[in-house]
Amino acid sequence: MPTFPIPMPTDLTILLTVMDFVGVFVFGLSGGTLAVRKQLDLFGVMVLSLAAALAGGVVRDLLIGALPPASLQDDRYLLVALAAGLAAFLFHKPINRLGKPVMVLDAAGLGLFTVAGCSKALSYGLTPLPAALLGVMTACGGGAMRDLLVAEVPRVLREEIYAMAALLGAAVVIAGRQLDLPPVPVAVVGALAAFLLRVVSVQRNWSAPKAPWS
Amino acid sequence: MPTFPIPMPTDLTILLTVMDFVGVFVFGLSGGTLAVRKQLDLFGVMVLSLAAALAGGVVRDLLIGALPPASLQDDRYLLVALAAGLAAFLFHKPINRLGKPVMVLDAAGLGLFTVAGCSKALSYGLTPLPAALLGVMTACGGGAMRDLLVAEVPRVLREEIYAMAALLGAAVVIAGRQLDLPPVPVAVVGALAAFLLRVVSVQRNWSAPKAPWS
Amino acid sequence: MPTFPIPMPTDLTILLTVMDFVGVFVFGLSGGTLAVRKQLDLFGVMVLSLAAALAGGVVRDLLIGALPPASLQDDRYLLVALAAGLAAFLFHKPINRLGKPVMVLDAAGLGLFTVAGCSKALSYGLTPLPAALLGVMTACGGGAMRDLLVAEVPRVLREEIYAMAALLGAAVVIAGRQLDLPPVPVAVVGALAAFLLRVVSVQRNWSAPKAPWS
Repeated sequence: MPTFPIPMPTDLTILLTVMDFVGVFVFGLSGGTLAVRKQLDLFGVMVLSLAAALAGGVVRDLLIGALPPASLQDDRYLLVALAAGLAAFLFHKPINRLGKPVMVLDAAGLGLFTVAGCSKALSYGLTPLPAALLGVMTACGGGAMRDLLVAEVPRVLREEIYAMAALLGAAVVIAGRQLDLPPVPVAVVGALAAFLLRVVSVQRNWSAPKAPWS
Repeated sequence: MPTFPIPMPTDLTILLTVMDFVGVFVFGLSGGTLAVRKQLDLFGVMVLSLAAALAGGVVRDLLIGALPPASLQDDRYLLVALAAGLAAFLFHKPINRLGKPVMVLDAAGLGLFTVAGCSKALSYGLTPLPAALLGVMTACGGGAMRDLLVAEVPRVLREEIYAMAALLGAAVVIAGRQLDLPPVPVAVVGALAAFLLRVVSVQRNWSAPKAPWS
Repeated sequence: MPTFPIPMPTDLTILLTVMDFVGVFVFGLSGGTLAVRKQLDLFGVMVLSLAAALAGGVVRDLLIGALPPASLQDDRYLLVALAAGLAAFLFHKPINRLGKPVMVLDAAGLGLFTVAGCSKALSYGLTPLPAALLGVMTACGGGAMRDLLVAEVPRVLREEIYAMAALLGAAVVIAGRQLDLPPVPVAVVGALAAFLLRVVSVQRNWSAPKAPWS
């Protein structure tokens, strides 16, 4: 997630940075509250919070060779993720009751992380197909790592329109780049598309298809 | 897997490239069909297919610092792995009935990936022992990642002569390099040795040894 | 683990190198004996031994961009880890009875790996917070990988003062660096602090806190 490798006006940079931190915090909450449910200790809560918030971006940076990863170069990402872990440790009960607002913020993080990940991969010279995959991985990898750390099959592989929403956002970014459209509006549209598909799919209980006759 | 870092005649290059894609496709099938059995959705099937087909080579490239990994630099690897996932999604029943041909093709992939991985590690300056390990990881890492993603102990750690066959192939490549033999025939012999040990061990139901008194 | 990136007198270098190998061996034993308990075959025992002994340092080196990882550049690390795997395969029963000496050696490895990992991260230009996290990861990552490979929730996330001891050691190193104290005594104090907190916490049965009302 960290870093929007797109030249853009200062106001938008500030807005995106704030939303990026919101995404990190909400993803971190998802890791921290799962850790509490799984009876992990304080350290385990912090590790799951860090993993959920940052692992997607870390793996993307490893794969494109952007080392050290962005979230190890700007302490604010670690601090926001750790703050989310502490919040989950202390206030997991009220947080778990906040189902809908957390879902909406998570969907915002999903859109932002996808667009940021995909754009960063393109700016490192990857072609559209792997860049789209890395965008999806940026958004979904943290949640997958979170689930693997408690020995569960990642939810993103099983249910709901989550990765599909990320894929839609990545597709918008790729299409915009292919058509040479200005990157900032394209990024906004991509993030919004992923956000809206995610929110609507939760409202309407949509799921990704499963194999026929399985 | 991707890339055979050995100078060789054009005909052989074409043959190896074709066999490399066959390996990617068959490894991808193993991931995709497992995902269908585990009731994952379409996205999960694609992810397991990608992981099984490409993760071994990706981890090898991460470890030797060959970034971005080969399979993110040539779209054909991603496309072949995704095609395998789609095939598994649509035709998992007939594919599951193809036990023996799939096993033979998988053994061919095992031999090829081992030799390619080991040779690439040597060409990046690693010494024989880590190069042999990276050859085995190239061949076995994808299957291990596939199993971990559905929260299972990797089959390669538990049963059958699979990693041992890869180790034999890697040993041939290392021995050939030490004796300064020409790389192409050595690679062919290494891949064949791994392939044959794997096929014979399945036919005869051989297993790797377990600890005594355990 | 591998490499102490601190200039220091020769005698101390030799001592630290020996203790580093002891740490690798004992961590390897923890992987190998778990593999035997889980009925893995010889290959699985070796993989778990390698993972437990070396994965923490490998992930650290991946994240700071020190490629190939130190343990792939000095065969002795691989050989010591493989020797630990073989020892576990052959002698797991007596090793399992050696509870206390193994725990003490493991605590020594914990202290050393933390200090080495944290110092290496600092010497690669990371700021204190990520460097401390990488120190903890160097010490705890191998054990976590070992548990994940047999599809278990890592013990380090659930119980006992283990990561907290590593964190204490890392905090000493960071504080020493901030105060510009000489690195060698700081490293010794950091490793000792982690070692002692770990040993005392096992003796007294201390645990890290869990979330209230969970």
